[in-house]
Order: sequence, then structure tokens, then C-alpha cells
Amino acid sequence: MYTAKHMKWWGWGHEEVGFDSHAHPGLWPYARAVLGVDEEISTRPVPIEAVQLHEAIRHDRFLAELRLGMRADQICDSRDERLIHAYGKGLRDLFRMRRGMAEGAPDLVLYPENEQDVLMAIRAASNHNVAIIPFGGGSNIAGCLERTDVHRMAVSLDMRRMRRVLAVDTESLTARIEAGAFGPDLEEQLNGYGLTLGHFPDSFLHSTLGGWIATRSAGMQSDKYGKIEDMVIALRMVTPEGVLATRTVPKSSNGIDVNHLCIGSEGTLGVITEATMLVHPLSGSRRTHGYLFRDFEAGIEAMHECVRKECVASMMRLNDPDKTALSLAFKPPSSQLSQAASKVMKGYLRVKGFDFARTCLMLTTFEGSKAGIARQHSQVNEIYRRFGAVDLGPSSGKSFESTKYDFPHIRDFLLDRGITSDVSETSSVWSNLVPLYGATTTALRDAIQSSGVQPWVGCHISHTYHSGASLYLTFACRQQDGREMQQYLQAKRAVQQSFMDHGATLSHHHAVGTEHLPWLADDISPVGVMAIAAIKGALDPRNVMNPGRLRPSTAPFEDWSKIASDDLSLPSQATTLHGIKYT
Amino acid sequence: MYTAKHMKWWGWGHEEVGFDSHAHPGLWPYARAVLGVDEEISTRPVPIEAVQLHEAIRHDRFLAELRLGMRADQICDSRDERLIHAYGKGLRDLFRMRRGMAEGAPDLVLYPENEQDVLMAIRAASNHNVAIIPFGGGSNIAGCLERTDVHRMAVSLDMRRMRRVLAVDTESLTARIEAGAFGPDLEEQLNGYGLTLGHFPDSFLHSTLGGWIATRSAGMQSDKYGKIEDMVIALRMVTPEGVLATRTVPKSSNGIDVNHLCIGSEGTLGVITEATMLVHPLSGSRRTHGYLFRDFEAGIEAMHECVRKECVASMMRLNDPDKTALSLAFKPPSSQLSQAASKVMKGYLRVKGFDFARTCLMLTTFEGSKAGIARQHSQVNEIYRRFGAVDLGPSSGKSFESTKYDFPHIRDFLLDRGITSDVSETSSVWSNLVPLYGATTTALRDAIQSSGVQPWVGCHISHTYHSGASLYLTFACRQQDGREMQQYLQAKRAVQQSFMDHGATLSHHHAVGTEHLPWLADDISPVGVMAIAAIKGALDPRNVMNPGRLRPSTAPFEDWSKIASDDLSLPSQATTLHGIKYT
Repeated sequence: MYTAKHMKWWGWGHEEVGFDSHAHPGLWPYARAVLGVDEEISTRPVPIEAVQLHEAIRHDRFLAELRLGMRADQICDSRDERLIHAYGKGLRDLFRMRRGMAEGAPDLVLYPENEQDVLMAIRAASNHNVAIIPFGGGSNIAGCLERTDVHRMAVSLDMRRMRRVLAVDTESLTARIEAGAFGPDLEEQLNGYGLTLGHFPDSFLHSTLGGWIATRSAGMQSDKYGKIEDMVIALRMVTPEGVLATRTVPKSSNGIDVNHLCIGSEGTLGVITEATMLVHPLSGSRRTHGYLFRDFEAGIEAMHECVRKECVASMMRLNDPDKTALSLAFKPPSSQLSQAASKVMKGYLRVKGFDFARTCLMLTTFEGSKAGIARQHSQVNEIYRRFGAVDLGPSSGKSFESTKYDFPHIRDFLLDRGITSDVSETSSVWSNLVPLYGATTTALRDAIQSSGVQPWVGCHISHTYHSGASLYLTFACRQQDGREMQQYLQAKRAVQQSFMDHGATLSHHHAVGTEHLPWLADDISPVGVMAIAAIKGALDPRNVMNPGRLRPSTAPFEDWSKIASDDLSLPSQATTLHGIKYT
Repeated sequence: MYTAKHMKWWGWGHEEVGFDSHAHPGLWPYARAVLGVDEEISTRPVPIEAVQLHEAIRHDRFLAELRLGMRADQICDSRDERLIHAYGKGLRDLFRMRRGMAEGAPDLVLYPENEQDVLMAIRAASNHNVAIIPFGGGSNIAGCLERTDVHRMAVSLDMRRMRRVLAVDTESLTARIEAGAFGPDLEEQLNGYGLTLGHFPDSFLHSTLGGWIATRSAGMQSDKYGKIEDMVIALRMVTPEGVLATRTVPKSSNGIDVNHLCIGSEGTLGVITEATMLVHPLSGSRRTHGYLFRDFEAGIEAMHECVRKECVASMMRLNDPDKTALSLAFKPPSSQLSQAASKVMKGYLRVKGFDFARTCLMLTTFEGSKAGIARQHSQVNEIYRRFGAVDLGPSSGKSFESTKYDFPHIRDFLLDRGITSDVSETSSVWSNLVPLYGATTTALRDAIQSSGVQPWVGCHISHTYHSGASLYLTFACRQQDGREMQQYLQAKRAVQQSFMDHGATLSHHHAVGTEHLPWLADDISPVGVMAIAAIKGALDPRNVMNPGRLRPSTAPFEDWSKIASDDLSLPSQATTLHGIKYT
């Protein structure tokens, strides 16, 4: 049985992979400079043996029921398995694991191999009041995977053994795929039919189809292929009350679209076991170019004009000046020749009147046949040029393509050095992007500054739509010793509240999880919250499916040692329904 | 206060408009021939005075509460108002009204003018156990508008006075529009900003934005603009428990998408009062060409190839041979010159080896600038030609464009002559369209033939998507005297059951209403039905909003005089929850 490898227990990626400072020699000097790091400190994770793991809650009758249908190798309660499934990879998650705090760890890990296994596990959990936490790749960063009740047995249901492409309709371009398939595995299987799903999120290597659907994920090439919810034709979701199943039809008028009750349900209603997805013929090749714009506003205008003219590359990602500086610092070391070329380019840009403090890098990916790429490139170039852009050619794009899945490793590297870094993202309409950018970056900088350290805040805009785009913030700062988590939560709260205050949404593609619960009622309205609670009550009457999610709560922001929730001024409508104590 | 005119009480369209047999002299001879009509009979509707209208249920405390917030001209209980709001325009609806049976009529009609009025009406209804039936243009043909309980006061909430475009964001291309705006009114207002919604269903003249959203409508140009659910960015829906409101953002990952709880809710949860919609710059002009294909399969292949090559016209509508014959019979009388031209064309087609019994007409609409239209036309032509098509040029397109909203009048004309005609439609994946076409047309012909008369069945394919398209059946037959409704229901049941048996859906864009309730559980699965019932229970705990919908029922197929429901062999999972007696 093929099984995808787990990520390391304390950070991103597989054990043997991490941030390579030799391959990116410019990054640390850049970080030191912008964050005001005078002396290097080491804040490495504790050794795995030092992690404090609570004794597992063991429910014998539940286990006996499981063993009727599952083999021993599908039922795991080893220390390692429990630690690996303790959390996702959010900053709070990493912080706790690195400090040896594994309160979020489940008591048991199950590996179902087919829908029957899932059905049996969920029925047994429902019969014996055991919480089920569906687990795909474990890469979620919004707190979707931690247990929220330490007094009740919690089981991580790891879907990775359900990984097959079950059927492909090459005429209609649809594929039935099991939900536990990881990105690379799923693509490899589809590629065998000359097809692709076209979904490449930053977490591609470490996330699954089911996770994407349950969290409304977006891939980097969503401009061409759409967001995951646009790709689902039909699905099956096992709930405690039975299987919800929909039909493989392109569109319907059959009342409320129940596909959309499952999409985004974040494991709270059941486990998605398979989905029939739109797929596409393999598009030939892909080429990413870098472009420089005089400022962020010109870049946004150029992106928008491409959308207006229906001249949409498969990816447009516009960095603001700070993110541009970070990108340059992240570049692999260049040859003398390319250093010389870069000097020539700088001279040229100076002549053209570029101010380097305001210059923005836009990465743009073209896909298709050779001729198709050439046509897209020339159309995009024509529009970008009208907005004053300079085409840097494919070399900066190549460096992006070769390192695009490596960014999350930087967080671990910085955490080793006493530095917190994280991301928050949202979406908004075109007319609101510039004001939203100004407001949220200011709120974030102010929040970090109030903890007495220098903030670094960068932003990129990507994932374009007819009416708007996604705005993605990255931030970093030196940690306040002993108040690391309060400092982080203050920043996180500030940026999320700013999203809400300025007409945006709590997340464009990272899910609600536990981290965004305080803003749920403000985002979807209290009546929306009621409706979701009602579905939950009907399909999961004993509240065994990923409890504590999709209902307003200030839990993740409360009771962190020494922090008063008043300090965080959370939205008033977000009343605590499930309090979690971290002590 | 502007108010759109009501349709006639017994048929389609405004009083002064109907099917003009002089403008379409070929239609009646064609119908007589294909249906085997030997002698003309007259089955005109009864005079309005002869319609039997039950005494209105009057709830004084409810009325008193309404009068606190609404003016007298917003609260109507006249006989005419009640009759006009009795039904939609389904075949069952027309049949009953023409025979003077108005059991579906409400006791009262309300005309809210703002969200506050809607909120008040729904609260009052909830307080006093009164059913509310939201009413847009009244054009629904699936039984969305009839009252389902004669023992409880029922109120038709007619939204037509809420008709304003409230705000337009010309940069982001979004518009906030009140839900009661009719197609032409809404387009006229948007056109003032140089914009269009691009939604032109067959019912365009007589339907509203709120109706479109509540039923998941599709416009003729959906190939370019999408189905209505693809155009909604945000909305407000008043429920008995308060207002569900979402944010104006292009995409989100905020859990279950609550927009999709409102879209398709068919008035069962609340009343949509406004929506923020994607809009588009006016696209210049529009031109429709007719094409002839050797057979249906070649036409389908050509449509699919256009989708594959992303060369999508704003409309492709492929008629099967019978529907092609009907289209030709429907054409306005032609001049001698065009008759001569048509002879030349026929000769040409004979030379090219066309068999007229198998020939299919494809209408294709191009939109945009002059150059854009020319480019689309040449791309489409190139593909169509590869599949053996002959371009008839824009003249047959012109006749389609000038009469495209007139088709529903034919039903009234035929009903006057003892002939039943109706439609059923669905969608399926490309690989299933031809088998589905064969199975459903056969099922329909057999069902009609079993009533002892000659069937006429035609089909068109339209509304293309990446994975498939919509299949739309039109059927007609002479009525069995005294068993008209049983005969109709038998045919309707046969075609709907055939959709389900062959992997399709109960409707692509006509809604569930009451007519499709027997197939709901089969379409969205019993767990899907449970989920919807739960939302209903939470947002409308007293079941005042359009009761009797979106829950499995065989009601419309039961108890019609002299018919045993056994004869109809309805799906077994469809248990009756709300029985309606028609006697």
C-alpha cells in the first residue's frame, strides 16, 4: 500500500528537506537588516523525547468496534504517530510543538483504506462519543487540525491511503479521485491519461484533494483553472448520518446545491471520501517571466487590465516593494556574468526613472503550446508595457519555479533564530485593493511596533477574478522573550480585524480553522452561522466531526499565558462556545 | 412607483400579446400533421367570471400587524390580484386556470417596497402562522408558486416594486440590485452605466433577479456569462430568524459558502431582497447565425470541439431533426426572393448529401465589437465546417432573435386547440449526451403513445460547459378527453424518471418546485435532503416560507381525479410529506 510520507513533527516538509541558507545566501543578511537583529540567538525545537505528551484516552469498546473492520496497521497509537498528527503547520502549531507542548495531539490515528472504513470509523465514533479530526496532508495553517477538547477521546483520521484516481472520462474531462490523494501523486496519475487537475497551491507537496475541498483551497494557477470549488462536479461525503452523494452533471437547478454544503465544511460534517473533478489536457509547457513595475498601483492596474481584456495568464503574482526586496534576497547566488547583467539592468532602470524603493516585481506564468505561450506573452507584454513595466525575461521566473514550494521552510529557519513570521490573506474587489493594502499593512506594522520591535510586512496580489483579487500579507519580527505568542496573536488579530473593517473576508484560501473563528459571524452574518450550526446538528448530532469549528469563538486568542483577551479587543459578536485552555 | 405589468391570468405574456398565427402561418399545419389532428376543436379558457375562487382566509391580527408598516395599496385582496397570483405558468398551472380551478390562489397579495417591508411581512407571518409565497415575475413552470395548504392563510409576496439598481462599482464591475427587478428594467438601468448583467433566460420579459437566483436560472447566453449562480457575489436574504447577509468579495475561504444556501432555496428559507452581481461592459452588438449539420451527433461534436478549443460563442443551440422542423414551421412567411434562395440552398444541400430527415439546425450567437464578432465567427466556422456544417448566414438568426421570447405563447395557442405541449430539461456530461438523448426521447414517445395518441418530441442542446451541456426536450400530443392531466403527468413522469435512470439531474434551470419533488432524494441523496431540512428548520422554524418545497413528495402526481399513483410508478424513496388534493 503506497503511503505518502509525513512531514517533520516540528516544521514544514520532510525530515531531510529544509531551508538551505547556502542556496539562498542573501536571505539571512536581509532579515537581520530589516528586523534589526543585533546578535544571533538560537531557539531550536526541543528534542522529540522532551515533548510532553498526555496519556492517551483509551475507549475499549470503541477500539473493539474498530477492530471488527480494520487491520492492526490501520490503527496506530504510537507516540510518534500521535505527535505527527498533533497539529497543522500554523505559527501557533509550530510554536507549541517546538516548545514541546503537544496538547493538541490525538489519542489515536486511523488509516482508512476505503469508504467502508471511513463509514465504520465515524459510526463507531458516533456510538462512543469520540471526536474525529479528518487529516489530509497536515499542512493547514489556520488551526483546522488541533483537538479542542482534552477530556474526550480524539482520533485523527488520516486519509492518505485513499489515494487512487478511480475513473477518468477523457471525453467529458472529468476524473473521480479519492480524497486522500496528495498533489504530486494525483497529478502523476492524471498525467498518465494526458490530463491535469491544474491545482497547485503552495502546499501542493503536502496536501490532499479532500483537504483542498474541505478548506476551499486556491492553487497558484487559479487564474486559468479556478479555485477548487469551481472544479468540483460531484462528491461523496461520509457523515454520522450516512453518505451524502451528488450526481456527475455539469450544472443543475435541483434546489440548494448540496455540493456547496460539503465544500468548505472543514471536517465538521463528515469526511469527503472522493470527488469528481474537472480536469484538463496537459497544457504543453509553462514559462514564468519576471516584470518590474514602477510602483504597486501600476502593477495592480496592469493585472486588472489583463482581466478586463480576458488576456489572463495562468498566474500573475505582484509583489509590493518589501516583498520584492525579499524575493531578491531569496534568489540563489548568481554567476559573475549574471551579476554584470544585473548591473546593466539596474543602469537601464535608473535611466527609465525607476525608484528602487518603490519598484515591484510581478511574476507571470504562461502555459500551453509553444505558440500559445508566445501569443499570451506578447498580449500580456503589450498591456504591461502600457503600465510602464520592464520584462526581465524568464530567468527570474525560473528561480521562482524552482523554489516555489520552498517558501514555508523560511519560517522554520527564522523560528530557529528567535524570529516569528507568518501570513494572512484575504480577497477584495478591484476598487478596494489599494485602500485595503494601505489599511492592513499599517494595522499590522502598528501592532508589531507596539510590542517594541521592528516590523517587516510584505504583500503580494494574486488569484485574479472578474471582480477582484486576493491580497496576501507576509510579516515578521523579532520575538518578545516570554511573550512570543501574545505578540503574534496581537499582530494576527490586528490584520484580521483590518480585513473585516475594510470590506474584505477572513481568508481567501486558508480556511476558518480555529484562528479565524472570532470573525466568522461578522463575515457570514449571525444568520449564516445559525444555518451552518443547523446542518451540523442534523448530520452530526453528537458533534463528533472536528468539533469546535465553524462556530464563533475567541478561543485561540484567549488564556494564552499572561494575555488578557481584553487586550485583543475581539469582535463582540464572537462569543466563546468552545474554550480551549493553553497553559 | 414603477410596477411591471402582470401576465394574463390564464397564459403567458401580457394581455395584448399572444401567438400570432398570421405571422407564423406554417406552425398550425405542421402541428396538425405531426400530431394527427383530423378536426379542429376549441378548448378555450373559461371566462374569468367563471373561475371558482375559494373564500379568502382572513387573519385579522396578522392584517393589523401588516397595516402598522404598509400602506393600503401594498395590501391587496381583490379577486383579480388573487387570481393573477394563483400559479406560475407550468402546464398544470395553465390547465387548472383555464378550467377555472384556482385552488392555488393566495388569500392576500403584498407588495413590499423595501427590505423593512419584507422583514415585517415575514415576521408577522411567522407570528401568526401564515404561509408566505415569494412571487417574482410569476413565470416559473415547475410549480414553485402554488399554495400547498388550503387550511392556512397564504400570502403572495410580490417583489416587483423592489426594482432599483442600488449601486454600481464600474471599476470592479459589480452592481447591487434589488431582487424584484425584471429583466428588461434591470438591463435598461445597467445599460445606463454602459453595463449588462448578460442574463437572458427565455422568461427574460417576465422574470426577476430574485426569481433567477432562487431557482438557479440559466440565460441563453450562459456560455459567455455563466449561470446565475456564477454571477452572485453577495446577497441579502430576509428569513424569519433575521437577515442573512454576505460580503462583496470575489472569493473566500470562510467555511461553507452561505451564498449557496440562499441560491436555489426556492423561497423556502426566506426572501432574497438584493444581490450584488457581476456585470459586464456592454458588448457592442450581437449576431446570430444559423448552421445546418448532417445529423445531431455531428452537431454535438462540433459544439464540444468549440468548448475544447475555448472558442465559445455566447450561445450555441443545436436542434434535433424534429425541433429543426418545428423551427422551420415557426419561421415568419418569407418573400418570394427568399423562397427562391431557399430552393437554391436546398439544391445545394442535396448535392452535399444532406438527408433532410436527419438535418439539424444550430443557432450560434456572436457578441462583441465588429472585429470580435468577425473573429469569433471565423473561428466557429472553421470548427463547424470540419464537422460538415453549412453556414446559413444571419437571416435565420435574425428570425430567432426577433422571436426568441415568443415560444411560450405557442403552448397557449395549442391548449386552445385541445393539444398539450410542455418541456423538460436536464444536463449531463458530454460522453452521456447522445445515449441520454436516445433514452429520454424514447421514454417520452412511449409514454405518450401509451395514451393512444401520436407523440411529437423535439430536443435541443444548449448551455455548454467544460464537462457537458443541457438537454432540453419539448413534447406535444392531442389531449385525451377527460384524462388530460393524467396523460400529461404520465409523460412528465416518464421523462423525469429517464433523466434519473440515465445519470442526469432533475432540472438544469427550471427548479424543483413541486413537479420535481419525487426525484429530489434520488438527485441529491437522502442525506442532502436532511441537510436542507435542517437549514429550513433553523431559519424558518414555523415553516411559513413557501411550505411544501425542497422536501421529497409525490404530491403533484397523486390524487388527480381517476389516476392511481401506482400507475405512475414513482420513486419509492419519495414519501409524501405534503399531500395536495386536486378534486
